[in-house]
Amino acid sequence: MRIYYECLPCFVNQTLKAVKTLDEGLRENVLRDSIRALSEIDFSMSPPEMARVIFDMIECHTGPVDHYENIKRKSNEYVMGMLDDLRATIASSADRFESALRLAIAGNIIDFGAKYDFTDDLIHGEVEEAENAPIKPDEIAGLKSEIAKAERILYLGDNAGEIVFDKLFIEELPREKITFAVRGSAIINDALMEDAENVGLTDLLPVISNGAAVPGTILHLCSEKFQQVFAEADLVISKGQGNFETLSDVDKNIYFLLKVKCDVVAKHLNCSLGDFVVRKSGRGAICPPVTLKH
Amino acid sequence: MRIYYECLPCFVNQTLKAVKTLDEGLRENVLRDSIRALSEIDFSMSPPEMARVIFDMIECHTGPVDHYENIKRKSNEYVMGMLDDLRATIASSADRFESALRLAIAGNIIDFGAKYDFTDDLIHGEVEEAENAPIKPDEIAGLKSEIAKAERILYLGDNAGEIVFDKLFIEELPREKITFAVRGSAIINDALMEDAENVGLTDLLPVISNGAAVPGTILHLCSEKFQQVFAEADLVISKGQGNFETLSDVDKNIYFLLKVKCDVVAKHLNCSLGDFVVRKSGRGAICPPVTLKH
Repeated sequence: MRIYYECLPCFVNQTLKAVKTLDEGLRENVLRDSIRALSEIDFSMSPPEMARVIFDMIECHTGPVDHYENIKRKSNEYVMGMLDDLRATIASSADRFESALRLAIAGNIIDFGAKYDFTDDLIHGEVEEAENAPIKPDEIAGLKSEIAKAERILYLGDNAGEIVFDKLFIEELPREKITFAVRGSAIINDALMEDAENVGLTDLLPVISNGAAVPGTILHLCSEKFQQVFAEADLVISKGQGNFETLSDVDKNIYFLLKVKCDVVAKHLNCSLGDFVVRKSGRGAICPPVTLKH
Repeated sequence: MRIYYECLPCFVNQTLKAVKTLDEGLRENVLRDSIRALSEIDFSMSPPEMARVIFDMIECHTGPVDHYENIKRKSNEYVMGMLDDLRATIASSADRFESALRLAIAGNIIDFGAKYDFTDDLIHGEVEEAENAPIKPDEIAGLKSEIAKAERILYLGDNAGEIVFDKLFIEELPREKITFAVRGSAIINDALMEDAENVGLTDLLPVISNGAAVPGTILHLCSEKFQQVFAEADLVISKGQGNFETLSDVDKNIYFLLKVKCDVVAKHLNCSLGDFVVRKSGRGAICPPVTLKH
């Protein structure tokens, strides 16, 4: 999915969030440079690729900084604190697979790249919404069937905190055939290897780094090892908007699981802001190129 | 009020809205130039001054264009269609002055410079909220008393559509001592002389142009005639965020009437997003300089 004009204010918001902790003088310089980079944006890139350009610009001034280190730790801890309740929800559901899948999508709300901040109300609201959010039954059945017949599954994680929900979902899956992937290094609140360790995902199944610091999966920027695992997987489970935005045009058997958090992705998926989405790649997922609304 | 970092995404949104009707190629060039101008922003300006810089940039490409001509006409017509109901609301109220004042503030929601689009639900929701929105009683009483004792009142209009609500309020005031001002030429959906004529304001009281194409009132950019009327007024009634942002630091007896439509103005006024505000200039209106949230 390429960048649309409507993505521009969002990039400015991402920059504003990222520079909050910098000293005043530095902050202004970083902001000006990032906005100048935006004026030269390549609209054929995907949004996460541009996010990387902006963070490169920021890190030219600051050196590598994990701007969201505290937030990621707190998100993991917060959702770990919900584990008993979430497990009880799954246990009391009519269909454990579907219940855990829905919660995994709810967890995708923890996204500091989008305009959401993490609040108690937000996350509990999503969990509450998860049970009855409209999701096409044939997509859920399709995913279940693909998981059953796949031999090698690659599960692409998205954000810290969210990966606790992924862990719960993975507990319901044949995890002996699944590899979980995290980002290679810090970018926004995306989950890294340390997050996977902190929430105990590494005790459940093999976790690999994708080798890139991009809030999505841009294959040519990923490590050779990751590219190999990706190529060998006969099913990819892709969490979140960033992975969708970067993989929507890749010819691969992918199931995208996400919470729709911006109008551009909503239009691209032909659905509505806030929707819970389970969508197989290539199955009418991609609408015609989106133009600016008139 | 100066520009804060949090204003930057809003400027990008304003630009996106303004270029919607341009041809694709031109649109991209205008967007890039406007964003480049943003990277060189002077943070000591007020937000409406920067909006003018952006529209100058757009008009370098397009020549003068009234981007909101249709929207302004439709807004005027829409609110004119509500006149009977609004008059009935005022007639059945316990206090005609207060009821009309509250509706005048509700009308300030019609603001395409902020993130709001004009919808039936939005405007009717505001009208409904107007009756009971918390407004400090002493501010309402203070305004009423100032109007009674003033000899020359200047009423600064804001947006098309909104001026119909202003007309209703003015019908409750001693209009023989009031002059109404509109912008000098097209900027966003701000009301011009033709709007004042179309809604019949010019039949009620003298209407003057301020001579400037700014979504606010930057005195040194206004015509000499306007500056003289401003100087001679012993009370200024100022509608909307743009007039507040440009006049909040001016030493003058001003009552600001507005609907709070962004977090920056909310912090500056020490109130909340969505509040109905009646605030006398210099009376604790201005908080200490706002810094970026951490």
